[in-house]
Amino acid sequence: MKKPLLQVALDSADMATALQHASCIAEHVDVIEAGTVLAFAQGMEAVRELRKRYPAHRLVCDMKLLDAGEMLATGAMSAGADWITVGAAAHIETVSAAHQVATQMGGEVQIELFGHWTLADAKLWKEHGISQVIYHRSRDAKAAGVCWGQADLTRMKDLSDLGLSVSVTGGIVPEDIHLFREIDVQAFIAGRALTGSNGVQIAESFHQEINRYWQG
Amino acid sequence: MKKPLLQVALDSADMATALQHASCIAEHVDVIEAGTVLAFAQGMEAVRELRKRYPAHRLVCDMKLLDAGEMLATGAMSAGADWITVGAAAHIETVSAAHQVATQMGGEVQIELFGHWTLADAKLWKEHGISQVIYHRSRDAKAAGVCWGQADLTRMKDLSDLGLSVSVTGGIVPEDIHLFREIDVQAFIAGRALTGSNGVQIAESFHQEINRYWQG
Repeated sequence: MKKPLLQVALDSADMATALQHASCIAEHVDVIEAGTVLAFAQGMEAVRELRKRYPAHRLVCDMKLLDAGEMLATGAMSAGADWITVGAAAHIETVSAAHQVATQMGGEVQIELFGHWTLADAKLWKEHGISQVIYHRSRDAKAAGVCWGQADLTRMKDLSDLGLSVSVTGGIVPEDIHLFREIDVQAFIAGRALTGSNGVQIAESFHQEINRYWQG
Repeated sequence: MKKPLLQVALDSADMATALQHASCIAEHVDVIEAGTVLAFAQGMEAVRELRKRYPAHRLVCDMKLLDAGEMLATGAMSAGADWITVGAAAHIETVSAAHQVATQMGGEVQIELFGHWTLADAKLWKEHGISQVIYHRSRDAKAAGVCWGQADLTRMKDLSDLGLSVSVTGGIVPEDIHLFREIDVQAFIAGRALTGSNGVQIAESFHQEINRYWQG
């Protein structure tokens, strides 16, 4: 299995703070994400700024879009995103429209797995060209004490087995990485762990753990 | 049943276009919505601009948020929104967090009904203080020819019967209004029908139809 990437999610509402966080951590991550909070607060200017400053990084625009797939995907891809996120609850026509725009512009759609999604949905996404999903423990659920469990890992394995790469997020820390060693992980996505004061040290710990469990 | 409101959804990516559309239609609608396309393109500046220009209108920020309920709700409410939208697929903790922020700031959350939601979900939202949902025919589904049907109306009636007001959207035209006469409709939401060149005329037709089927 390919080695998972490390992704930082920038979720400040304030542009200066987001850019300052990015400047501290960029060379320690593979992927930079304009988080939903930043994208809504600042609009696509946030994506343009990040693309300008980080021309070589993979750039994600975390819209979690649910409708108007063509328009929203066009906005994000034109601003410089490589990957854009679509909510699992979106109608398949929305997924498909976003996917077409993204791939025509050299990028990809990632499906954000919120709500009541099924493996039948996942197969449908795959049939429509999707190759990536993002498995969450929501920020609010984590804050309320909801943990990673065997049910999560089983579902992730099922998605891997369907041929979908799974990015993992939701308060992830280096000590969690080993849990996912059987999964085809696209990226581990962390926000506050990487944008805090010891973000670089934590990024190094993430890389150590990734290197321990994945080769290549 | 209370009389449904008429709501315009502004979904231009460009601010000047959105404001120009608003200026033509504002006095013919009850509610102005910063659509998801506008909100992502321009950020919360779009909401601030609309609030400044239309201090008396009900203002919606159509985020369809799925996570970070507190942060995103705070951003939108602080920018001047009255109502903010939360995706049905969001974890209940997210719904609850957004609802708490919205109501503390004098507003409300509306649940956007995308994906596999159930009446059990709806009851849970109601228990957490939610009083409004938005029933969709997605833009992409409509473009692919998916129509309003009896199944939609039955589901909307079930939601009404639970005590939830239902806003209706998805390429709605005045000729559709009669279909919803048994539903507790909060608002009919239209985008391109109201921002096009004969938007005022169409708004008047909407009001005529609303007055025909609802009193009060």
